[in-house]
Amino acid sequence: MSGSSFGKLFRVTTWGESHGPALGCVIDGCPAGLRLSPELLQPMLDRRKPGTSSATTARKEDDLVEILSGVFEGFTTGTPISLLIRNTSQISKDYGNLADTYRPGHADYCYDAKYGIRDYRGGGRSSGRETAARVAAGAVASLILEELGIRLRAYTTAIGSVTLPEGFAASLSLKELAAASANPVCMPSAEEAAKALALVEEARSEKDSLGGVAECRIEGVPAGIGEPVFDKLDAVLGQAVFSIGGVKAVEIGDGIAAAKARGSENNDCSHMENGKVVFETNHAGGILGGISNGAPILLRAHFKPTPSIFREQKTVNKNGEDTLLTIAGRHDPVIVPRAVVVVESMCAIALLDLLLENNGSRMDRLSGR
Amino acid sequence: MSGSSFGKLFRVTTWGESHGPALGCVIDGCPAGLRLSPELLQPMLDRRKPGTSSATTARKEDDLVEILSGVFEGFTTGTPISLLIRNTSQISKDYGNLADTYRPGHADYCYDAKYGIRDYRGGGRSSGRETAARVAAGAVASLILEELGIRLRAYTTAIGSVTLPEGFAASLSLKELAAASANPVCMPSAEEAAKALALVEEARSEKDSLGGVAECRIEGVPAGIGEPVFDKLDAVLGQAVFSIGGVKAVEIGDGIAAAKARGSENNDCSHMENGKVVFETNHAGGILGGISNGAPILLRAHFKPTPSIFREQKTVNKNGEDTLLTIAGRHDPVIVPRAVVVVESMCAIALLDLLLENNGSRMDRLSGR
Amino acid sequence: MSGSSFGKLFRVTTWGESHGPALGCVIDGCPAGLRLSPELLQPMLDRRKPGTSSATTARKEDDLVEILSGVFEGFTTGTPISLLIRNTSQISKDYGNLADTYRPGHADYCYDAKYGIRDYRGGGRSSGRETAARVAAGAVASLILEELGIRLRAYTTAIGSVTLPEGFAASLSLKELAAASANPVCMPSAEEAAKALALVEEARSEKDSLGGVAECRIEGVPAGIGEPVFDKLDAVLGQAVFSIGGVKAVEIGDGIAAAKARGSENNDCSHMENGKVVFETNHAGGILGGISNGAPILLRAHFKPTPSIFREQKTVNKNGEDTLLTIAGRHDPVIVPRAVVVVESMCAIALLDLLLENNGSRMDRLSGR
Amino acid sequence: MSGSSFGKLFRVTTWGESHGPALGCVIDGCPAGLRLSPELLQPMLDRRKPGTSSATTARKEDDLVEILSGVFEGFTTGTPISLLIRNTSQISKDYGNLADTYRPGHADYCYDAKYGIRDYRGGGRSSGRETAARVAAGAVASLILEELGIRLRAYTTAIGSVTLPEGFAASLSLKELAAASANPVCMPSAEEAAKALALVEEARSEKDSLGGVAECRIEGVPAGIGEPVFDKLDAVLGQAVFSIGGVKAVEIGDGIAAAKARGSENNDCSHMENGKVVFETNHAGGILGGISNGAPILLRAHFKPTPSIFREQKTVNKNGEDTLLTIAGRHDPVIVPRAVVVVESMCAIALLDLLLENNGSRMDRLSGR
Repeated sequence: MSGSSFGKLFRVTTWGESHGPALGCVIDGCPAGLRLSPELLQPMLDRRKPGTSSATTARKEDDLVEILSGVFEGFTTGTPISLLIRNTSQISKDYGNLADTYRPGHADYCYDAKYGIRDYRGGGRSSGRETAARVAAGAVASLILEELGIRLRAYTTAIGSVTLPEGFAASLSLKELAAASANPVCMPSAEEAAKALALVEEARSEKDSLGGVAECRIEGVPAGIGEPVFDKLDAVLGQAVFSIGGVKAVEIGDGIAAAKARGSENNDCSHMENGKVVFETNHAGGILGGISNGAPILLRAHFKPTPSIFREQKTVNKNGEDTLLTIAGRHDPVIVPRAVVVVESMCAIALLDLLLENNGSRMDRLSGR
Repeated sequence: MSGSSFGKLFRVTTWGESHGPALGCVIDGCPAGLRLSPELLQPMLDRRKPGTSSATTARKEDDLVEILSGVFEGFTTGTPISLLIRNTSQISKDYGNLADTYRPGHADYCYDAKYGIRDYRGGGRSSGRETAARVAAGAVASLILEELGIRLRAYTTAIGSVTLPEGFAASLSLKELAAASANPVCMPSAEEAAKALALVEEARSEKDSLGGVAECRIEGVPAGIGEPVFDKLDAVLGQAVFSIGGVKAVEIGDGIAAAKARGSENNDCSHMENGKVVFETNHAGGILGGISNGAPILLRAHFKPTPSIFREQKTVNKNGEDTLLTIAGRHDPVIVPRAVVVVESMCAIALLDLLLENNGSRMDRLSGR
Repeated sequence: MSGSSFGKLFRVTTWGESHGPALGCVIDGCPAGLRLSPELLQPMLDRRKPGTSSATTARKEDDLVEILSGVFEGFTTGTPISLLIRNTSQISKDYGNLADTYRPGHADYCYDAKYGIRDYRGGGRSSGRETAARVAAGAVASLILEELGIRLRAYTTAIGSVTLPEGFAASLSLKELAAASANPVCMPSAEEAAKALALVEEARSEKDSLGGVAECRIEGVPAGIGEPVFDKLDAVLGQAVFSIGGVKAVEIGDGIAAAKARGSENNDCSHMENGKVVFETNHAGGILGGISNGAPILLRAHFKPTPSIFREQKTVNKNGEDTLLTIAGRHDPVIVPRAVVVVESMCAIALLDLLLENNGSRMDRLSGR
Repeated sequence: MSGSSFGKLFRVTTWGESHGPALGCVIDGCPAGLRLSPELLQPMLDRRKPGTSSATTARKEDDLVEILSGVFEGFTTGTPISLLIRNTSQISKDYGNLADTYRPGHADYCYDAKYGIRDYRGGGRSSGRETAARVAAGAVASLILEELGIRLRAYTTAIGSVTLPEGFAASLSLKELAAASANPVCMPSAEEAAKALALVEEARSEKDSLGGVAECRIEGVPAGIGEPVFDKLDAVLGQAVFSIGGVKAVEIGDGIAAAKARGSENNDCSHMENGKVVFETNHAGGILGGISNGAPILLRAHFKPTPSIFREQKTVNKNGEDTLLTIAGRHDPVIVPRAVVVVESMCAIALLDLLLENNGSRMDRLSGR
């Protein structure tokens, strides 16, 4: 029932449907004293909004965020922050004929089975637009993490069969990655970005769609973050990222490759450097035993291809009848470029919550204040 | 801080260290009226306990579970169920020399960074023994799911480079899978099981270790289970399985392969059969939009190779010094065969919790009772 | 940090300050299929809004509620419901001089100690206006309870020294109570209501304020609601009602009087009537062992006098200086009449959440749906 | 369903029935580095155990606590602490004839209505013995609070009609209160204690029972603790104390008396003293707007008379028949003296949890550690 809240201390509750008047979120537990304004949040939202690239959908939303509470004279007060984004560009007539038919690969049938009623317009609550609220919250979390010396960035590592060369992303700094992935497919290599765009157009002309992979790297995380045994850092990141629509696999560090390696290859050895523990490799992706070890955290999210394709498909409808469906509308042939900032936002939210929870882990760091 | 509880309605809290007197769990929220006894739980625990196979560790624990509360005249009362498993076979002297040294690939350093103190014997709380408590709880969850017509089974699909043939597991029923995977590596193909065992012995002789993959299939789940947008079924399963030590990747349905497919290939089409919606393929792995669609749920967990290898490794110690470490003791060259039932347990616990939460989703299924 | 959410399954998150642009709440976990519209919620909000009586404040807010999500074609979809109420009548200049001074009896000093920053206008988040959002959510909860045959009503039983005669409220039906308490002080006895109004005017002329008592009766609750041992029905109602600003005591059933009685007087005896258990007395107030027993639930909330009085008071300010303060503005000489519907709302929300949680208590009432 | 856990960061889960083999609790989230041993916990448990006074029950339990996890070399490790107390003195035959009959004033009927099954021996989970586990956890919480300079003590202020003189307790220091209440009724005045004991014997001879009032004072709490709007300090203390069996009313500060006072009487004025805010009176009981203000916290719990009396009573049984019941066994004529330390424990647990949560309230007190 109550599945739209995430987090224990920095708690984010999102609301809103694709064709409702607005969508938004409430952040309950944001520390007081953070400089906050819509201008500080808009850049992250702009990385998500449709219409900015030829690779994505044609629906144009400005996604301008408004702050309705929790900020006073430019700083957070510690009270709940209500963020609102108005839907300005919904076109109901695009969806009218889908009221009763279950689109293959979408959640339509599942929502009807669960609730007995669904807002079918634009996918209702299951629409990807719902993620705009998450990005607004992720933007706030990112600001706080930055104050604590923690930086993160997500980018596309693959679209369809086009993949970044091995080790390419790892060789770039976060700053370089951000700059290099400022293109319509968010791939930090100009060469692969061009190939990917070509592949996207090919899929579009074939009335088909593509999947892909988004990777997120987080630097500056101190060792010790994560709450064994169930709220381990990788477990919470896993939940956070799997909750993004379209994600069918999540990897930490070497991920799938680790399962094929030997222990002698996979263990990360360490040595001391200026009084700090330094890891010589990072197969673990910055997490051991569910707790951060100080090395960069590395996570990858694998997205299935966009379900909305313009070919005729076999399906059933609400009346229990077999039927054929051809979708019209404004759909992304690939969602990964827009999902990249959502992956980053969910990582930021999840990490911040665990960071805050770590405050009380040791008697020698407690105070009665 | 409080990361050892899982679940909202069927809540499992585990406790216990590898070398403490015992370990156990408390199940808070088990429905009343379930027939329950240690005999009903022991079989699942027996699938985990060390010493049953040549592939695993030599530490022999009986893992006999005791029920201390929550059961009366053979049935659950609805009050918290306390399950306890005594540690009988700890040998402290095996670990004494590891008090200050951080074993590569283990959580030692992270626990010290987080808490400033750690029980180093046998890995303390980060030891795999902690999962015995999870399996006890998973056994209870499985009994309830069975009453509701839901069955699940986990098995090994890969150890190192030895993998089941494509489509092999899918061709077997859950019953056949259970029977066929009753071997030391839990692989449901005799041919691959033999190859895997040979590979394990090879790794053992090389003082190295192997990773692998465990898959879990769940049948009989009605459509509609999962709580969007953050407590989606795949998100909660993801957290549950990532929380198992050694897991570095989780896949749902086609998982990683979905990211490389086209929409026309990945969408599962459906038709009606005797008034029920039947999916013709199951690339989705039984979950769409984070909610079950009635098709079998398929999940895979990828395990990194066991960190404890008997070669000399570079590491650091508590005093900030570089050092070399050679581990002795009783360690699994591969943990996947023992982790299989843990994956199954976590899936059972996660699914049951969401199933219970779904009770209140619709006005027409509510009652004031 | 994250203290603005209440409930486990029917979860209410409120946001908003007295002088912000708006305030509101998100209801996460409302069952689908409930008929819902602003018109259905407005009556309960109207029972709260200032300006309706001479006994309360002069600030005139319409408190019109808007539904931004979670409703489709007049019915709830099961997705989060965002309710918003705009602040239209804030006058900042009334408060400007209170930026640094801590008003006695208010939370000003505490908020500064906690957060280091506070929105001082109109009391910011600690203002009673925050309760408007709770009433909006309570109105939704009440609609659901009504569908389940459960009705509740709160009313004033005392203002200052003016108290209803013993047994008076108990002799009226809920319907009669509602009708009889439709007066500016919400007291269901015309005689006491008149005395109370006179007392209020007397206090106002003396630049002083009054406290009082609100009672809530709930009928139709089935036996078995409440989750021992910590989420007992009385414990959760207690938290819910104590969270309302100004509450300094909560009683269940005979409350304080029970502590002075003998067991032979306090035990409620029962007998069978048409196959149902009927209690001959109700000293328990409908709750035994933290679980409802089917008898009407009775709860009383005691409110301290409104802190804002127009006399000069000794206090301190943000700069650590002793100072004198005389408040101006639009303040209630007594808040109880407006708090009555807030008490009712919190009881509705708390009860509904526990009712939903009770769904999974027994195997014989579970289903896999 | 899952109502046996309390707390968000310092989470306590209790388990166990009156006639089961044992009862206990798991503390999840105890900070690491606290010196802990059974000897440090036993004194608080000894204040609760039956048989220590002529005023209470004759059942003799040693209530010796064992620590099964979470402690290493005398200090907490930050991992879950499992505390166990064996039941040694249950006598089943005392209860055998109550298998089907619902004892008036007890939760028997409610448990059957809720679960359809109940362990009737000794009241099962609804027995007061369940509180032993809470006291064990409260003892741990008290140790931590003490390290943070916070001390608390609960004591009896009334038994039946015997009440401490007005202002008496307030005139004693916590140390004096502790010493003075070391008598069978825990009343810090020898004169009233004697009268109370006499009253208890009178009730016992009349085969009746008495209620009473326990008060808890907490000193050293810094200003700023409590999470508006729902997890306010008084709201959480209210839930914690109402969850104790037998509590029918809870007061904070002046409580009920506040509702009868004027604002000019009830507001606490303040002035500066050595750079600290000092309140000249404490009608608020240390809490304003749900947040601590630095003054001593004062809470009172009102207990109904023990339901188990030895007179014949009218009631019903499981078969829907009217019947008469005369209880035998070993019952307290008054439970308040034993409940005093339970009130103190619940206050300690609740306060500690909110204290830990306050760590993240402000950016200027956050660190990435």
